[in-house]
Amino acid sequence: MPELRKDPVVGRWVIISTERARRPSDFAPAPAGRSPGGLCSFCPGQEARTPAEILALRPPDTKPDTPGWSLRVVPNKFPALRIEGELEPSGEGLYDRMSGVGAHEVVIETPDHHATFAALGEARIADVLGAYRDRILDLEKDPRIQYVMVFKNHGEAAGASLEHPHSQLIATPIIPIMVQEELKGAAEYYGMKERCVWCDVIRQERRDRRRIIMEADGFVALAPFAPRFPFETWILPSRHRSSFEETGVEELRGLAELLGRFLRRLDGVLQRPPFNFMLHTAPLRDGPLDHFHWHLEIIPKLTNVAGYEWGTGFFINPVPPEDAAAALRENGA
Amino acid sequence: MPELRKDPVVGRWVIISTERARRPSDFAPAPAGRSPGGLCSFCPGQEARTPAEILALRPPDTKPDTPGWSLRVVPNKFPALRIEGELEPSGEGLYDRMSGVGAHEVVIETPDHHATFAALGEARIADVLGAYRDRILDLEKDPRIQYVMVFKNHGEAAGASLEHPHSQLIATPIIPIMVQEELKGAAEYYGMKERCVWCDVIRQERRDRRRIIMEADGFVALAPFAPRFPFETWILPSRHRSSFEETGVEELRGLAELLGRFLRRLDGVLQRPPFNFMLHTAPLRDGPLDHFHWHLEIIPKLTNVAGYEWGTGFFINPVPPEDAAAALRENGA
Repeated sequence: MPELRKDPVVGRWVIISTERARRPSDFAPAPAGRSPGGLCSFCPGQEARTPAEILALRPPDTKPDTPGWSLRVVPNKFPALRIEGELEPSGEGLYDRMSGVGAHEVVIETPDHHATFAALGEARIADVLGAYRDRILDLEKDPRIQYVMVFKNHGEAAGASLEHPHSQLIATPIIPIMVQEELKGAAEYYGMKERCVWCDVIRQERRDRRRIIMEADGFVALAPFAPRFPFETWILPSRHRSSFEETGVEELRGLAELLGRFLRRLDGVLQRPPFNFMLHTAPLRDGPLDHFHWHLEIIPKLTNVAGYEWGTGFFINPVPPEDAAAALRENGA
Repeated sequence: MPELRKDPVVGRWVIISTERARRPSDFAPAPAGRSPGGLCSFCPGQEARTPAEILALRPPDTKPDTPGWSLRVVPNKFPALRIEGELEPSGEGLYDRMSGVGAHEVVIETPDHHATFAALGEARIADVLGAYRDRILDLEKDPRIQYVMVFKNHGEAAGASLEHPHSQLIATPIIPIMVQEELKGAAEYYGMKERCVWCDVIRQERRDRRRIIMEADGFVALAPFAPRFPFETWILPSRHRSSFEETGVEELRGLAELLGRFLRRLDGVLQRPPFNFMLHTAPLRDGPLDHFHWHLEIIPKLTNVAGYEWGTGFFINPVPPEDAAAALRENGA
């Protein structure tokens, strides 16, 4: 059973994932490359190699866990957390722990092993975004779950262990520390100004233009003023909205169009970099918030994070966001 | 001129390091391997290729920046921050920035390009630790500097760009956010218990034994209860001490012995992994603190940090610290 543990100094929780437990010998340097050819467990016809599907887009005359689908959501076969069991907090001297209850799901974005998310096309990307929304809305029904983080690891250097296009979500019984910090900072700003800080960021960036990358119907992609990583990009809805899962079908198409266009541009400028994206939405139980604005953070994996960053939380970024935005903006700087 | 910028939501500062500025084409995938042979700029005889030395251990009859040394400290040739200039805070609408004043130095740990820190031997490791202390004490005289983080990146995957054994320090005009969070959490604990949280951790771990890795005169190496990374290890002084730089020469030998022994054990168990270590000491201007306990954090680089961690600050660790400690403990589990 996986377990959540809390650091007694900074209050940061970690997941000790015994389902994925490894011995020291498992960390030996990996052999170069991967076995080529063959069908992976996310390919059509291999449905029996994943746990039973939770959601799929498939013709009505096809059965679950058979070919014909255009998108599948399945539980992760090696989940960081498990949906079964009671939430049991316990202590151990000065330490706190909790049973590792939660969900860990995989969104298989396309049957085509060799496709990329960026090239799926607007309608298919909108399907993927719709699957994120539907899974968040479904997980919200489970009273043990407080937060759902949707994320994508693209490319081995960005942590993807399988090549077949997929994204993931992890649902946890606690609100992750970085989301808590965003909520706290945003609430303080709102307390002073009675305005959402991200709404103010969008207004200022639209006047300034230097960090705006691209816009679409209802959404804006910008390089943040203080980015941790080279070419870090945020996509936000132009109008205030705290929860991603409130986004309607029409709006999702605007987001899909912008996200696809941005990722293709990133591929062109940075030669198909590995990347991560992470969806920051409000906690499930908070209701609409005036001070929180959902956003998608995209970070190409171009540099190694090293001792200084791990020791301080202070990131050294060699690319000013104004330069990154100029390079990523369409039709040149 | 590098620049410090603050995120308007979470208050996290970043360093926009224009000295290291790069164009998009600089991020193209690196050619495999590195040019072998030749002397690097940290090798003896190549002293002119680094900025002038700040500190060196060398026979009295040798001149600065000539061979003969056993350890050199030099400014980083591509510094993240610069020592020249005034501290100038400025605003830009809702954003805050500050001139990138600070120091970025390199400790060249040995003249031997092919040595490793772990194998330097107790006396030489004590010299390196002594150089850390002397540089912190010297930088403390500069009233603009609030914090010095000493760190080591070993191996390319852990962010080392040069093979020759070296560590680094970065001195900043602000206290990094992770140090602030440690200080805040520790002060809260002290407020409740009137005891240092790390002293309590050491007491509990010594009774429990399952996470103790090894001990030496005055120091203990343990696997923390809630580690972010597989085989993450903390080394702490057994007696309360808030500032590393107060450590006396005799005590440094105890630390050197334990650190060398630990790293050789890590090399044996995990086949010479890349790793980082980071020295967490109290801020320069705070004086001795009852609630802060300095410690060295060591993190082998075995897994990729990916979207979930970047989005949440919630780390998934596949190795329980009890298992890591058992594997790293001498004479078996």
